[in-house]
Amino acid sequence: MIGLSSYAGVMESLMNCDEEQQPSSPLTNSWSKNQDSGKNQKPKLVGGFVLVHAGAGYHSESKAKEYKHVCKRACQRAVDQLKAGALAVEAVAAALVELEDSPFTNAGMGSNLNLSGEIECDASIMDGKSLHYGAVGAISVGRGAHDWAVSHGIPPCPSEKMATKFSLSAYKRNKRKMELAEKIDTGHNQAKKRRQSSENENGSGCLDTVGAVVVDLEGNVAAAVSSGGLAMKHPGRVGQAAHYGCGCWAENACNMNPYSTAVSTSGCGEHLIRTMLARECSAAMQSEDAHQALLEAMQNKFISSPFLASEDRVLGGVIVLRCCRCVEAPPSQNIQGILVEFLWSHTTESMCVGYMSAQDSKAKTHISRLPPGTVPGQCLAIEGGVCRLMSRGE
Amino acid sequence: MIGLSSYAGVMESLMNCDEEQQPSSPLTNSWSKNQDSGKNQKPKLVGGFVLVHAGAGYHSESKAKEYKHVCKRACQRAVDQLKAGALAVEAVAAALVELEDSPFTNAGMGSNLNLSGEIECDASIMDGKSLHYGAVGAISVGRGAHDWAVSHGIPPCPSEKMATKFSLSAYKRNKRKMELAEKIDTGHNQAKKRRQSSENENGSGCLDTVGAVVVDLEGNVAAAVSSGGLAMKHPGRVGQAAHYGCGCWAENACNMNPYSTAVSTSGCGEHLIRTMLARECSAAMQSEDAHQALLEAMQNKFISSPFLASEDRVLGGVIVLRCCRCVEAPPSQNIQGILVEFLWSHTTESMCVGYMSAQDSKAKTHISRLPPGTVPGQCLAIEGGVCRLMSRGE
Repeated sequence: MIGLSSYAGVMESLMNCDEEQQPSSPLTNSWSKNQDSGKNQKPKLVGGFVLVHAGAGYHSESKAKEYKHVCKRACQRAVDQLKAGALAVEAVAAALVELEDSPFTNAGMGSNLNLSGEIECDASIMDGKSLHYGAVGAISVGRGAHDWAVSHGIPPCPSEKMATKFSLSAYKRNKRKMELAEKIDTGHNQAKKRRQSSENENGSGCLDTVGAVVVDLEGNVAAAVSSGGLAMKHPGRVGQAAHYGCGCWAENACNMNPYSTAVSTSGCGEHLIRTMLARECSAAMQSEDAHQALLEAMQNKFISSPFLASEDRVLGGVIVLRCCRCVEAPPSQNIQGILVEFLWSHTTESMCVGYMSAQDSKAKTHISRLPPGTVPGQCLAIEGGVCRLMSRGE
Repeated sequence: MIGLSSYAGVMESLMNCDEEQQPSSPLTNSWSKNQDSGKNQKPKLVGGFVLVHAGAGYHSESKAKEYKHVCKRACQRAVDQLKAGALAVEAVAAALVELEDSPFTNAGMGSNLNLSGEIECDASIMDGKSLHYGAVGAISVGRGAHDWAVSHGIPPCPSEKMATKFSLSAYKRNKRKMELAEKIDTGHNQAKKRRQSSENENGSGCLDTVGAVVVDLEGNVAAAVSSGGLAMKHPGRVGQAAHYGCGCWAENACNMNPYSTAVSTSGCGEHLIRTMLARECSAAMQSEDAHQALLEAMQNKFISSPFLASEDRVLGGVIVLRCCRCVEAPPSQNIQGILVEFLWSHTTESMCVGYMSAQDSKAKTHISRLPPGTVPGQCLAIEGGVCRLMSRGE
């Protein structure tokens, strides 16, 4: 088992949040209810940081460019929201929409097709401030969810618009393989074959669930995850993206927890559900050394989890963000800051991530890979960075 | 906040497991593959203990008799299985089938109807030995789950057979109330009204999810839960009974955990999901004092949970079982024993439970109630007992 301990980079940034710098977008006004009212009204702190990923799985060099692009756009969408005064939970939703709308990711448009050739999506979102959580599972099947959405003014998206040329042809190939396999060996082991067949289709399995974690300048965190699920899955199967504690987690700092934490996971749904990986990583991040804590959580609570004792290979990835308030400038200057530590770790061959703070001109992207010669599902890579968000206090 | 600390009763029992006492039912043979083979074949240890409940909610005196009856029958079904050599996970499933088949419980037949007048069930089961877990959510909607079941030889049960006179007339009453309320106050707050209306229908809300926890004489634990969900729920809503860590939990003892634990929960799905109550109670039960541990878990992780800070009343109940091997007889006699501690606790007005060990002639049943004058959702009752399962070793 190998733990790469290289930090991808260190970003430091300083943000002055004077009133004249506040954006005048309509969104700012809609969020003004979150400001304290009264004579000594605080200037609204706008800004924050976002970390996204476009799946833990296998990313060929040829697809790398597209994955980086979509990560970049998703970061930009979240930052646009943050600059307009949105809270973390709004920004994280904006990033997810961008990731889902890409035909290259296995979420929203371009999702894997199930055994019946249909798309069924799982997704969830958690707000660290209120600790509220919402999820949908297998939603093309869920007529109830569809009817609810329509009755609440959400326009439906017909299934045929969500499938892509790529996902349709992958489905047809998988289907042919399965039919062939069934002719040769009828009876049992078909489920195993189906799974293997769809994994081979994409190298070590295309597990391109997407996710994002965000902190806003008020220190609120949020996390979200979205997935089309396994290719050729049984209709109605619900993966980790719709499971509380498994696909995403966000908790603001409180009496018991010095750090605010946000986590989003990707990979094999069964592995992520049975280990409740998002919540486990979030809890682990309350330890002093973030990097060491994540490394130990991935090793002890995931790869070596007693809940996965029968699995040869444990496949997954996480993006993690934790932050705390810090005052490093002389007290006279009254500068408040938020120290953001962000990390990603995966046991899959690769994971494509992007990150950006509100004062960056563009997002940084990176494809993290296991070191050559290591075995996916048994080894892990871990990387990350630090970002300091600063604002002059009142 | 009040914690009743009276133990309902203490059962002690001794079981000799000589070979001539083994039942000769056909099931015994089908389990023979679980026995060690070879010359020094161990005699199969048959027996165990089951604790069931028919819902945490409000049980009128008039309904009490029916609830006790179904608990009694469910215990008997589990014990029949245990005596026939079944493992805990088989026995817990047998108890659940009995609880579901009763028209009085809000699970399986007689389930609450949703807003569209249909039945959608949630259920899950966990095996403490393998740590395997399975769940289904909103399964009358899940065409995929239905098709999978049929293709695997499970006979479908038409929806119209699952509704009862009682559930249909309750639906019609609720529907009329809602339509009246909507005429008076169109627009927002309808969801709240719908919920209140269906709660009023049944006193403090009919939350009669059912559940069971079992330990077999080899020390394996298992837990299961089944629910028809809230009356008048949105179609497609999935409650705690289909959520990992929330509706049930079972974990055999291992290196890290001295006790095997099994938990099943009932009550308001949102409260049980957001607190992951089943898993929290299971983890808490590793402390030395089972009663104190459950009391603290219910107070700190449920009633006062930061995840439910905005809730006035936190409604739920749990049945809990924990056990460990003990050798109390002189070593020369080579008597192995399992000490089973079983408890229930609830913040709802009442909870109907039943329990039985394999050597009892019939199950004991009990309706636990909050003390007069206390407020449901803010106070709790906690009760339990101890049972010693003994078998002569080889």
